[in-house]
Amino acid sequence: MKINTKHLFENFKSYENKEITINGWIKTIRSSNQFGFIEINDGTNFKNVQVVVEKDSIDNYEEVTKFHASSGIEVNGILVLTPDMKQDFEIKATKVSLLADSDGSYPLQKKRHSFEYLREIAHLRPRGNSFNAVFRLRSLISFAIHEFFQTRDFVYVNTPLITASDCEGAGEMFQVTTLDMKNPPLNEEDSIDYTKDFFGAETYLTVSGQLQAEAYALAFKNVYTFGPTFRAENSNTPRHAAEFWMVEPEIAFADLNDDMDLAEDLMKYVINYALEKAGNEIEFFNKFVDKGLVERLKGIVNSTFKRISYTEAIEILEKADVEFEYPVKWGLDLQTEHERYLTEKHFGAPVFVTDYPKEIKAFYMRMNDDNKTVAAVDLLVPGVGEIIGGSQREERYDVLVSRMEELGMNSGSMDWYLDLRKYGGVKHAGFGLGFERLIMYLSGMKNIRDVIPFPRTVNNAKF
Amino acid sequence: MKINTKHLFENFKSYENKEITINGWIKTIRSSNQFGFIEINDGTNFKNVQVVVEKDSIDNYEEVTKFHASSGIEVNGILVLTPDMKQDFEIKATKVSLLADSDGSYPLQKKRHSFEYLREIAHLRPRGNSFNAVFRLRSLISFAIHEFFQTRDFVYVNTPLITASDCEGAGEMFQVTTLDMKNPPLNEEDSIDYTKDFFGAETYLTVSGQLQAEAYALAFKNVYTFGPTFRAENSNTPRHAAEFWMVEPEIAFADLNDDMDLAEDLMKYVINYALEKAGNEIEFFNKFVDKGLVERLKGIVNSTFKRISYTEAIEILEKADVEFEYPVKWGLDLQTEHERYLTEKHFGAPVFVTDYPKEIKAFYMRMNDDNKTVAAVDLLVPGVGEIIGGSQREERYDVLVSRMEELGMNSGSMDWYLDLRKYGGVKHAGFGLGFERLIMYLSGMKNIRDVIPFPRTVNNAKF
Repeated sequence: MKINTKHLFENFKSYENKEITINGWIKTIRSSNQFGFIEINDGTNFKNVQVVVEKDSIDNYEEVTKFHASSGIEVNGILVLTPDMKQDFEIKATKVSLLADSDGSYPLQKKRHSFEYLREIAHLRPRGNSFNAVFRLRSLISFAIHEFFQTRDFVYVNTPLITASDCEGAGEMFQVTTLDMKNPPLNEEDSIDYTKDFFGAETYLTVSGQLQAEAYALAFKNVYTFGPTFRAENSNTPRHAAEFWMVEPEIAFADLNDDMDLAEDLMKYVINYALEKAGNEIEFFNKFVDKGLVERLKGIVNSTFKRISYTEAIEILEKADVEFEYPVKWGLDLQTEHERYLTEKHFGAPVFVTDYPKEIKAFYMRMNDDNKTVAAVDLLVPGVGEIIGGSQREERYDVLVSRMEELGMNSGSMDWYLDLRKYGGVKHAGFGLGFERLIMYLSGMKNIRDVIPFPRTVNNAKF
Repeated sequence: MKINTKHLFENFKSYENKEITINGWIKTIRSSNQFGFIEINDGTNFKNVQVVVEKDSIDNYEEVTKFHASSGIEVNGILVLTPDMKQDFEIKATKVSLLADSDGSYPLQKKRHSFEYLREIAHLRPRGNSFNAVFRLRSLISFAIHEFFQTRDFVYVNTPLITASDCEGAGEMFQVTTLDMKNPPLNEEDSIDYTKDFFGAETYLTVSGQLQAEAYALAFKNVYTFGPTFRAENSNTPRHAAEFWMVEPEIAFADLNDDMDLAEDLMKYVINYALEKAGNEIEFFNKFVDKGLVERLKGIVNSTFKRISYTEAIEILEKADVEFEYPVKWGLDLQTEHERYLTEKHFGAPVFVTDYPKEIKAFYMRMNDDNKTVAAVDLLVPGVGEIIGGSQREERYDVLVSRMEELGMNSGSMDWYLDLRKYGGVKHAGFGLGFERLIMYLSGMKNIRDVIPFPRTVNNAKF
């Protein structure tokens, strides 16, 4: 019977002195004339299994000790408890078979490589410790997010990736086309004739599923999206990618306070999940990537998130004894340096900032009674700054229409969105959580390219 | 305390004769001078809650009885058990407040609409019974799939959507660009200068995450993708969409039999999940959409899937006493009519067909010893035909290279894929499950447009 090593680590005592079979890839191998140690990993568990090979116990000792790192092997052997050693158990091999060889050119030998170098071999990097930990964490946290929402009766909705709407307003968009780029069809006005394109219209990759999620929240009460979104921004920073995943819950019969409660619950849930289900990985990050990680994460779980208005935030920043690079003034957006001052220095805790000036926020956010600010919210966390952005949505038909007119928006293609305000358009709210930023936050990794399997950024769509 | 109606349906006995508050949208309302009934639904549960309003019990009876369907209301009242009625309980209202009104123009009044008409109002259709059932089922089955893989220690991997590779070979692709379509930059050869495009290369929307998933399977053993994929095929059929979701597991240290075992387990798991967790919805489909549904689904769970080779399938079809439209001959691909004959008429059960001629399958499939067929597999199910396609992958470096040369493929951009065969490239296999086809199968819905919230098809990217 072949056993996943994850199962073995969880149940090793029940296999004491039993014969077992495991598969895996060789991580390290060292040997003398008489015996050797092979660390193997089958990918199901962060920690390796130690296999002891002895010249007298297997019939191909000479061959085995020449295997290269990354070869795939099958090991039969007896599990022996080793309570006095670093590891809890080891396997005394009775048979070792080569399943797939490797050679000396394997780029991930024992020595440590820079994250930059490893990006060049994105197809191999998940085999190394750091990226093995990152991408298992990413998988576990994806599931934690689904579990969080599903156990609260949220409906998962797959909003469209290709959109003919340019109203989302969250950034530059990629065009999607099947037209011949060299000789596109033209119409009578000598413009490109998009009626001949695949969808009969000019189409783009979405920057957010929110507007469509609103339609579903007004049918299912509580919904969430979790899927890819795109930005064609030419910004070559450690925090921006052209393709990334976003979580966007949308809740009906709910206001901005409900929205913040949900965001706080979600953040605490995923942090607890990471600490519980990815203990080995978090420990590794804490040791090798970000020494304050565990303390910071545990601090968040035990804190109550602060809630202040944008106006209060500006007052705090104006009084701060710090030289900011960017100006602080009511009406201007907060920069990362301001956000980090608030959450790291002033509060030392996550902080929700609400009620931003309408001029710096999107058209769909609910107008406050002061007619100057909207019911927006950003969640700022230590070490990152903004990690969540949300709002209560403008549910009043007339207010929304006049706001769109004010902004010169053509409402024609948005009739469906306005419909939602006509037919039982109860108050509702939602937010967007950048999934990669969350993984950066949970792992301490500093570059978004290192938390996406195959990152897409300016001038890079390799693999 | 406001209660989700899902919670109420699950725990109504514990609320007997207690005062509760619920929110919801009015589905139907009928009244006399003295009392009336309002069916409301808050979206968390398929079934409506019946509210009884009496003129003497609420102070705005005249107003309430004029509310339009789809208005959002809040109801305070006493929960009363009604064991002799169709429903288990009802709410005797003590207060009814209007949260958001509606009017007589609401398009989803009581009468039944055609699915075609409802597609035109895709932003409102999830409020009706059929689509409410479809999209809650879709959400539950999404989670079932994640749960299936996560509890088996599979790692979820997000493969890229934008790709510079044209080797996937599964169909026509959409181009992704930020170039000015009207005046694209040209190079010296008068071709479009894609070094000036966002990614510095010609890029497309992916048709499959398989190749990248293979890289991750060779690090984590068992992985799966679950995300959007795209086909720019101009086929206006009830089974094809330009944007759809696909589940692609990839397993290492595994062959085609392991692959089929996994597919069979997955199918049975999700069917059981649907029957258990979406009982009301499945019952609705069985009554109004597809009367044989429950019987068919239960039949699948209790059956052992048949396994035959393509060559055996051809023999069966040649002997069949049926006039097929398309020819049956060794070397030709099976058409839907053939697939359905095999699974519906001949076996009356799901059937795996394996080992297809290499000419009709993809370059990465493992060559069999006969050098004529490859280790491919399709799963055919009654009512649908092909629902899963997979294969064992060619893990032998030399065989893969010569196969690619045979097909005239430029291997340069595929070096990373070949690398996987150099460094511990153990045997591995995987398959693709079209998520929408699965939902069609589980619901009996006949058009893919009716199981995607906002479908994208030829000439349609509305909403």
